Amino acid sequence: MSSGVTAARGFRAAAVEAGIKPGRTDLALLVSDRPCVASGVFTMNLAKAAPVLVSAEHLRDGRARAVIVNAGCANAATGRQGLADARESAALTATALGCPVREVLVCSTGVIGVNLPMDKVRAAIPVAVSGLSSDGGAAAARAIMTTDTKPKESSRRVDLGGVTVTVGGMAKGAGMIAPNLAPLHATMLAFFTTDATIDRAMLDRALIEAVGPTFNRITVDSDTSTNDTAFALANGASGAAPINGPGPAYNVLRDAFREVCRDLALMMIRDGEGVQRIAEVVVKGARSAEDALRIARTIADSPLVTTALHGGDPNWGRILAAAGRAGVGFDIDKVDIHIGDVFVCQAGGARAYDEAVAHEAMLKDPGRLIVDLHDGEATEFMWMCDLTRAYVDINAHYRT
Amino acid sequence: MSSGVTAARGFRAAAVEAGIKPGRTDLALLVSDRPCVASGVFTMNLAKAAPVLVSAEHLRDGRARAVIVNAGCANAATGRQGLADARESAALTATALGCPVREVLVCSTGVIGVNLPMDKVRAAIPVAVSGLSSDGGAAAARAIMTTDTKPKESSRRVDLGGVTVTVGGMAKGAGMIAPNLAPLHATMLAFFTTDATIDRAMLDRALIEAVGPTFNRITVDSDTSTNDTAFALANGASGAAPINGPGPAYNVLRDAFREVCRDLALMMIRDGEGVQRIAEVVVKGARSAEDALRIARTIADSPLVTTALHGGDPNWGRILAAAGRAGVGFDIDKVDIHIGDVFVCQAGGARAYDEAVAHEAMLKDPGRLIVDLHDGEATEFMWMCDLTRAYVDINAHYRT
Repeated sequence: MSSGVTAARGFRAAAVEAGIKPGRTDLALLVSDRPCVASGVFTMNLAKAAPVLVSAEHLRDGRARAVIVNAGCANAATGRQGLADARESAALTATALGCPVREVLVCSTGVIGVNLPMDKVRAAIPVAVSGLSSDGGAAAARAIMTTDTKPKESSRRVDLGGVTVTVGGMAKGAGMIAPNLAPLHATMLAFFTTDATIDRAMLDRALIEAVGPTFNRITVDSDTSTNDTAFALANGASGAAPINGPGPAYNVLRDAFREVCRDLALMMIRDGEGVQRIAEVVVKGARSAEDALRIARTIADSPLVTTALHGGDPNWGRILAAAGRAGVGFDIDKVDIHIGDVFVCQAGGARAYDEAVAHEAMLKDPGRLIVDLHDGEATEFMWMCDLTRAYVDINAHYRT
Repeated sequence: MSSGVTAARGFRAAAVEAGIKPGRTDLALLVSDRPCVASGVFTMNLAKAAPVLVSAEHLRDGRARAVIVNAGCANAATGRQGLADARESAALTATALGCPVREVLVCSTGVIGVNLPMDKVRAAIPVAVSGLSSDGGAAAARAIMTTDTKPKESSRRVDLGGVTVTVGGMAKGAGMIAPNLAPLHATMLAFFTTDATIDRAMLDRALIEAVGPTFNRITVDSDTSTNDTAFALANGASGAAPINGPGPAYNVLRDAFREVCRDLALMMIRDGEGVQRIAEVVVKGARSAEDALRIARTIADSPLVTTALHGGDPNWGRILAAAGRAGVGFDIDKVDIHIGDVFVCQAGGARAYDEAVAHEAMLKDPGRLIVDLHDGEATEFMWMCDLTRAYVDINAHYRT
């Protein structure tokens, strides 16, 4: 069954064991049968990895046919050699596919500050090209994993003027996850394909509008990566009418993108390093969406809230304290807090509630922490996860 | 031996078991034999605890004689009842001491959102007053502990025009520690006493200048508390010449304050929840001190750097990535990173080094992580600690 990035027509994928991460597949290739309109969003971290720089360059003309991705090495903080290696990976892929090098995008994920083992990459690329298959999505999703415990794939089919159009996607990421706030700041690695026909400007917009309320609303550890990248490729293979501007067709496609993004973002946080439980933080009644989001993000990143979530401790005082240090002005004496359905804090103070019921609400998965500022009309949300011993164990011994 | 807050002449302290935290002392009283010039700095968290509000009000005239402190209950997010309880605690203390209520400052630390058990406080205050002793500093330092494993006291003696002047202090705090940045944003609970004679303006300045490069440069978990408070009391009992303006005498006294602050701040981070190892993050070559501090703070708070410190993993890529997401502009390709004496990253890229030696440098306690931006003249630093399983254990089960 075609799934994930190969769910849309005209896309093939492959996964190979290049030997960068011994004993498993670690190199994925995604190819469209025809040139695609392509969009990308990248990390805002100043320490941008070499593949980010090369892909951004190749995307300037808004066209691409292939993406080559490796796990096990981020090719970040690798200077000139890193850039040369990323360019060579693109060139080798282009040669093997018979397309211009500018149509190949490059992604890497793994340890920072280590050069790509190019002998292994050189040997693996032709094997990947010969293994391309329209059923290859699932294998590709597995090959891009690092500390992920599960591959992450999703797809949606929608009707555009009587033609079925598919949006598919895959993603990876379990730690160093705090996609940046602004629209053009992306997430971990995420790849979207569609057989819709759409121009570059509208595909850019769809990607940004899909990533904003999904990937940019999850946080595992507040660490924004050097390699965060999301690509969207549209090859027009469905034969649906072209989307060249806003309107109902655009909205349908954008919503499909957004649903795939949401699926993948929730899979990502659910599979976050050491995560046992996730919760949605909703901040209501703020003066602006920006204020609401800033408070939601501060709560979601607070080590004291993430550990309370882990322990199922309905410790609303920590939620209130995190809101109070978010750097946003509001009247703390008007704040209500609900944990799930349990009303735990009213007007900034304690409220009688059943501790056992509140504990149950805190253990619910996914949980909901609702903070109402009663100070305006804006609402925003973030998805958070618990901080566990396992997160510490995974990250204290990552390279050893 | 008089130590800590009772090291300076004319100060007495007591500790009693009020029963707020069963089985240990949990209420401390600090009293000067004569009225003092007093300064205070408080948390910038919007969710200010009732004792913070009451103490700020009492400090408006710049005079105080006593501080009453309880552990086990923060009296935060307790609304009108909390304010009434804080005021009553001050009033009871004032009555027992025979001083005006405005000369009593109040502090609480412990769980948020729970009312003070006033019956216990009412019973304990007279016991504390009758137990006041010029040797009571050590017992008081023990009574204000929460998750601290050790009491924190320090003192310095300096010569001011042939007269020996003492500055003493005690502090508590192990979690929810990220004292806020600006000068008036304080730390956890810290109390300073001196028998110098100094006016309010200069005592304010000494407190701010002492707290800035010490308490405001440590972070355990990036969570700024609702109750952070630092008080300084100066009673003039040494008979030294009054300090009414800048000059050598002020500098000597300010430096003594700063040394006591530094001792206590390092004790605090060393005793941070679950902490096994601490390190100083130094950011050099920044365009401004503000930029340098922002980068140092981002590195010190990064879960990926704190876990790497825990594992002794010289993973400089995480340090570079944290610097890159600090929101400060600089050229990542000029950045050098040293771990202790080991030069691990040059011009933003990998550098050959002995992994075992770098591992040893990362295990050193205290360690030093030095980031040179080569982009300006400014230097700043932060003290950080490692993130451990024990931090998770302590905070996931705080209330149970």
